[in-house]
Amino acid sequence: MNHDRSTHAVLGSPEQIETQFYEALQNGDIDKLMSVWSDDDDIVCVHPGGPRIVGAPAIRASFDAIFSNGAVYAEPQKLRRVLSHSSAVHSVLECVRVIGPEGPQSAWIVSTNVYLKGPQGWRLVCHHASPGSPRELQEIVETASILH
Amino acid sequence: MNHDRSTHAVLGSPEQIETQFYEALQNGDIDKLMSVWSDDDDIVCVHPGGPRIVGAPAIRASFDAIFSNGAVYAEPQKLRRVLSHSSAVHSVLECVRVIGPEGPQSAWIVSTNVYLKGPQGWRLVCHHASPGSPRELQEIVETASILH
Repeated sequence: MNHDRSTHAVLGSPEQIETQFYEALQNGDIDKLMSVWSDDDDIVCVHPGGPRIVGAPAIRASFDAIFSNGAVYAEPQKLRRVLSHSSAVHSVLECVRVIGPEGPQSAWIVSTNVYLKGPQGWRLVCHHASPGSPRELQEIVETASILH
Repeated sequence: MNHDRSTHAVLGSPEQIETQFYEALQNGDIDKLMSVWSDDDDIVCVHPGGPRIVGAPAIRASFDAIFSNGAVYAEPQKLRRVLSHSSAVHSVLECVRVIGPEGPQSAWIVSTNVYLKGPQGWRLVCHHASPGSPRELQEIVETASILH
């Protein structure tokens, strides 16, 4: 197994790193996928309905298992973000089409992606995905005026 | 409805803000709960199995609805965190005991809590909670050596 990330070094804004992440999912490219993650020991990934997965080796193994059934056609939409100097907290609604043994399936996924800026540039430290609501409405936004 | 947060101003480390958050859940204290959140318009909350909720008014309304069934006895455990100068990305496994009309229920929840440091101090910008695995094991951690 090749853990060398140097051949897939990525640079860019949090948005560009996020694009790399989803391109890697769509291509089933495990090395490219892992290259967007931080080297921190406590990086966390939660797949929809799954437990907490901590650290690059376990995260890599989880995506290897996913990719053994094919690539993941996840398209992030409706980005919401909160930024600071060295962090970017992204919330996206993913429209996911999975090509598996039983054919294509579609689903909505609510994902939080957190990027921190370190010596290597912006890197993913948390990907938390959970199943979207069965309702078509995946988002609730109300203004204060609506409440009164 | 009182949106004044000044009476519940909180200061402290990300850990202290997180403690305030869970104490507010356990006490069903909506004002204290909202006081830990950032003023940013794009703060995001995802309740287990639910859609994305954006902004303080909608988040407040969601917790009002939850508290109408009673307080939430959620105890965060097994903190994992990635820190930068102005951000703290926390992953916790919550043991939740909900006191509802049908009596107490227990569940495991996997939560990501992200705190950013702003002019007001550390504040919560994202709480993403999803149902834990039905297995007892809520966490997968493997070292590289195990994979070879």
